[in-house]
Amino acid sequence: MKTNMIRTGIIGISGYTGLAVFEILLKHPQVRLTYISAHTTQGPVDEIWPQLAGRTELICEKINIQKAIDQCDVIFLAVPHSSSMDITPKLLKAGKRVIDLSGDYRLKEASIYEKWYAHKHTDAQNLKAAVYGLPELYREKIKKAQLLSNPGCYPTAALLGILPIGTSMTNDITSIIIDAKSGVSGAGKKVAANLMFCEVNENFKAYKVCNHQHSPEIEGYLSNAAGKNLNVTFVPHLLPINKGILETIYIQLNTKTTAEKAHTLYTKFYKNEPFVRVRKLDVQPELKDVVDTNFCDIGIAVNETGNLIVVTSVIDNLIKGAAGQSVQNMNIMHGFAETEGLL
Amino acid sequence: MKTNMIRTGIIGISGYTGLAVFEILLKHPQVRLTYISAHTTQGPVDEIWPQLAGRTELICEKINIQKAIDQCDVIFLAVPHSSSMDITPKLLKAGKRVIDLSGDYRLKEASIYEKWYAHKHTDAQNLKAAVYGLPELYREKIKKAQLLSNPGCYPTAALLGILPIGTSMTNDITSIIIDAKSGVSGAGKKVAANLMFCEVNENFKAYKVCNHQHSPEIEGYLSNAAGKNLNVTFVPHLLPINKGILETIYIQLNTKTTAEKAHTLYTKFYKNEPFVRVRKLDVQPELKDVVDTNFCDIGIAVNETGNLIVVTSVIDNLIKGAAGQSVQNMNIMHGFAETEGLL
Amino acid sequence: MKTNMIRTGIIGISGYTGLAVFEILLKHPQVRLTYISAHTTQGPVDEIWPQLAGRTELICEKINIQKAIDQCDVIFLAVPHSSSMDITPKLLKAGKRVIDLSGDYRLKEASIYEKWYAHKHTDAQNLKAAVYGLPELYREKIKKAQLLSNPGCYPTAALLGILPIGTSMTNDITSIIIDAKSGVSGAGKKVAANLMFCEVNENFKAYKVCNHQHSPEIEGYLSNAAGKNLNVTFVPHLLPINKGILETIYIQLNTKTTAEKAHTLYTKFYKNEPFVRVRKLDVQPELKDVVDTNFCDIGIAVNETGNLIVVTSVIDNLIKGAAGQSVQNMNIMHGFAETEGLL
Amino acid sequence: MKTNMIRTGIIGISGYTGLAVFEILLKHPQVRLTYISAHTTQGPVDEIWPQLAGRTELICEKINIQKAIDQCDVIFLAVPHSSSMDITPKLLKAGKRVIDLSGDYRLKEASIYEKWYAHKHTDAQNLKAAVYGLPELYREKIKKAQLLSNPGCYPTAALLGILPIGTSMTNDITSIIIDAKSGVSGAGKKVAANLMFCEVNENFKAYKVCNHQHSPEIEGYLSNAAGKNLNVTFVPHLLPINKGILETIYIQLNTKTTAEKAHTLYTKFYKNEPFVRVRKLDVQPELKDVVDTNFCDIGIAVNETGNLIVVTSVIDNLIKGAAGQSVQNMNIMHGFAETEGLL
Repeated sequence: MKTNMIRTGIIGISGYTGLAVFEILLKHPQVRLTYISAHTTQGPVDEIWPQLAGRTELICEKINIQKAIDQCDVIFLAVPHSSSMDITPKLLKAGKRVIDLSGDYRLKEASIYEKWYAHKHTDAQNLKAAVYGLPELYREKIKKAQLLSNPGCYPTAALLGILPIGTSMTNDITSIIIDAKSGVSGAGKKVAANLMFCEVNENFKAYKVCNHQHSPEIEGYLSNAAGKNLNVTFVPHLLPINKGILETIYIQLNTKTTAEKAHTLYTKFYKNEPFVRVRKLDVQPELKDVVDTNFCDIGIAVNETGNLIVVTSVIDNLIKGAAGQSVQNMNIMHGFAETEGLL
Repeated sequence: MKTNMIRTGIIGISGYTGLAVFEILLKHPQVRLTYISAHTTQGPVDEIWPQLAGRTELICEKINIQKAIDQCDVIFLAVPHSSSMDITPKLLKAGKRVIDLSGDYRLKEASIYEKWYAHKHTDAQNLKAAVYGLPELYREKIKKAQLLSNPGCYPTAALLGILPIGTSMTNDITSIIIDAKSGVSGAGKKVAANLMFCEVNENFKAYKVCNHQHSPEIEGYLSNAAGKNLNVTFVPHLLPINKGILETIYIQLNTKTTAEKAHTLYTKFYKNEPFVRVRKLDVQPELKDVVDTNFCDIGIAVNETGNLIVVTSVIDNLIKGAAGQSVQNMNIMHGFAETEGLL
Repeated sequence: MKTNMIRTGIIGISGYTGLAVFEILLKHPQVRLTYISAHTTQGPVDEIWPQLAGRTELICEKINIQKAIDQCDVIFLAVPHSSSMDITPKLLKAGKRVIDLSGDYRLKEASIYEKWYAHKHTDAQNLKAAVYGLPELYREKIKKAQLLSNPGCYPTAALLGILPIGTSMTNDITSIIIDAKSGVSGAGKKVAANLMFCEVNENFKAYKVCNHQHSPEIEGYLSNAAGKNLNVTFVPHLLPINKGILETIYIQLNTKTTAEKAHTLYTKFYKNEPFVRVRKLDVQPELKDVVDTNFCDIGIAVNETGNLIVVTSVIDNLIKGAAGQSVQNMNIMHGFAETEGLL
Repeated sequence: MKTNMIRTGIIGISGYTGLAVFEILLKHPQVRLTYISAHTTQGPVDEIWPQLAGRTELICEKINIQKAIDQCDVIFLAVPHSSSMDITPKLLKAGKRVIDLSGDYRLKEASIYEKWYAHKHTDAQNLKAAVYGLPELYREKIKKAQLLSNPGCYPTAALLGILPIGTSMTNDITSIIIDAKSGVSGAGKKVAANLMFCEVNENFKAYKVCNHQHSPEIEGYLSNAAGKNLNVTFVPHLLPINKGILETIYIQLNTKTTAEKAHTLYTKFYKNEPFVRVRKLDVQPELKDVVDTNFCDIGIAVNETGNLIVVTSVIDNLIKGAAGQSVQNMNIMHGFAETEGLL
């Protein structure tokens, strides 16, 4: 084991996201896992997650901020919303770098956070300083971030699907509709009647129509990148599968465009990105192409008579939509190869 | 057994749609099944479909038009596209009533049919006379139809989801987008590499984006009902489930509306319909509420700032989207209670 | 509506079994539903189960035994184990007939019940009088039963799979192993971490190995029918599907037999049974052949060199394994055609 | 890239097994992929498998044995049964090492192969020399193997589940029953009516009861290890999931044993094995613990009154049951760490 490896910790190992971060870091050649903890569950990690037996002897401890400070260079927070802002200020004060996978530092205004998360924001100061960890948009800022706010799963697929048009044809856009479909792990590991097997299997439905907390996150960063307020209609649906998000995005223009022109715009925008793959014109990406990977695949089709661009954007909600992207951000923050541990 | 029962026949029992018609008719109190046939499979029906053992002793024969004429008052055609127009003219000429579940008589122009189905239309005469079997729109015409063209599964959910707005606020509509998701039985029982279990399970994708043969069917009947040409953008997706269609329909208006107003419009439009259930405002219908039934459930939500109505429309693609609706049409054609055999 | 229809009530409509009984009785031509109640949920039945909208206007009330007595001739109990024995004695005392779908009256010894259900049995008297509702075994007793104890789902498939051999070749049997696989609805509608979608989907496991409360039920009635104590090894597994049980049963003999002989034994045993279908020799029944029906399908194969009979037995756990069988029993108790409402 | 890396080739990249080998080798630090080919598909590998885009620029060629010989040190054959024995002799003659994932060299007698695979065996000579690649049984022989015959998926789980008892209590065993359940990828990527999504989803069935070609493979190697002929009854079932095998194995003894004793026997047998994890007594392994890994997890329970040991053995059929085990064998053959590329 190299002696100069980065010491990493995970707070919140008992959820699907914490596990996904753990599995990636376990194989990452530049880091050591030095601190693992959770709110309610303690003991050997492989008793919490039997699939890890034979691969780790780490122990999950009760959360102890001082220990995390003492034992880590960078800490991943995979805790529920509102719990993160209790922990983060202490870690930052001790000079640690924090990668927060909760929603606590994503919305730049405390008042907007409070409206959508129904919880008082108690750390407005760090909210301003937090860097939003979408590498394709903020790579330079991420390099120097002390507090990295990892994007939501839906916003990751949405922003990557809209940015090329949103930033170049801003004034031509008259409407953006995001019809999003997500596998069940997006809801986390919570026990809820509507997520029981028989309620989800062989079923399908929309939920939180025009009312999901990821709406303002998408609108905020899109508008910021576009330099103009852009509204989106966001309608999420629950897919009867474990992993994956597909978003079908309808961008209405008030000017003519062609399929080739739109497609070229996307391929150019992402030509140097290691984790965004623009499919050939009229080829539709599928969830199975990206599940268990850190890729975002994008398909482009155009209804030319209607001046409507139809973008399909697919990711694994737990990887590019959470754990994978958080490690991609860690790589950028520490000057590692951006794909390290992720291919 | 009553002596005045209607004698019914099915041509094309070996597909999922033919089976679904069979199962409904088997329990229908006003009809007898008198003729069963298929192109490639013959023998006892319960050897073709083992689940029917102990419930029927009927024999599936090789297709023989004269026998169908001799033994039936009304014939259901559950054959592939293009095969129906070979059979239908002969049945009509013999004075029989025909309920066609294929796509052959849905599009009113032979040229449009030929463009979308890639096949020459050889029965333009009956194409004009065929009645489109959406009871909520054409109930009066259906009563007297000799040739009933049963709607496609996607168009059924789409038209029922759009008609209340489409016919009353026609001039306010600037755009209609249909994001459709269907279970796999919608593709029929054909053996194809892209419908193998491992290719579909835990996967999700869009297909035939803006290019599906049900697009012109939706546009045609919608425009006809609205009295004005209305375009739709139609994007189907393949759900990893057996049965059910959910369509999320985005209707963009150029005028203000409210959620209550839109919802009232739908509840009034369907208040006497036995098979359309408009859910309470902001309640989302789920596939499992309609699978194995002839119901179409509709949910209404409105993005008031965006002047956008979001309609969700769900059906069982094999029942209200095919076999159930065909029996509903038969009931109307013969003066039976419209719900007979369907509740 | 006929005036002499049987008045039926359901106590416990909020679970999957209660719903399944409701749906069958709603279409049953000989009965009226006159009383619906549940422990924790009240209101219009179609608000508890949205799929019933437009099909019923019945109201679910808080459980009131006196009302059930006043309004019903026969009451179905679809309540959890231990709750039934609080209600049943009162209904019986008032002269009502009771069809109990819980496990409370299945095991004939209070002490055995207490060992396997971890609950004191408070109604030992009626335990003795209860008739076990497996029509294929106890049809004559069922006709006169006041208290009908409806079999468990696993025991239904197991007993039907073993009885032909168990009662005719009793002394040749040296071992019986039941490898059982069940869909998730068998666990009821309870909210539990291990039944969440992501924990079950794309997963499979054994549980309660040699330790399931249905073991003594199978052994008890099998031994009773055989006239000799027969032990079984019973290992249940959880299938990632909604509905259906398949049991692969290995009956080891100490004598030679042939596939034909074993198969003939089964076809003869069930030749007059309306709901048991013995498949042809070496044809394997599938879950999809019986799901949503009251049938039990049986397949026979023999390892002749090993003197081992391999029986596969499939049912829908909610229909033949619960609600359907309970209505079959009601039909027998009231002298209706046994298949009424069930085909 | 290191200069002394092993040059590896894959013949048969278009199936699920070939893909799985490819993905493991792509990340393996000790090897280079130098030759990729397939019978019917050619072109960039990432056009055959879109999920590989951005991860490889390798081209799949038409099969050319001489090229394989020129460019590789070791060749993985992921071709269908009977195709392997056409290719293998030529590779061996040129001095290459071959890892064959087909069934062609698993059964040691040509006559037995011909009975179960219904195909003449044309390479009896190499059949004798082939080493069966179950590392837990034949590690020493594997080190020197030129032709490695990789075990079938069912036999891998079966043998690992039986060997500890089979080799130590041989004379106490009176019967072995293997009730096996496999995900659909076990059938490969072939297009077949019975593997269509709607035929498998929400369904379950047994197939090839006592008649599967993996039976003699299990019996042969088990008997060989035990030093005595042992018969097994093998009944496979098709699970509606993509990946994973669970086998419930019933080992009947004619002597008393205890749960603790049986469990100790297993933990000792596997105490140094990197890829076999014996779970705690009475803990049941689940498919999700091993899917996407090279582990085999084993659970032990005992019906002490019946002298019956119930072993559950789970693997990922494509990893430990095929590609992962083949790379484990390659590691052993080349003196790499056995877990290299597999954890």
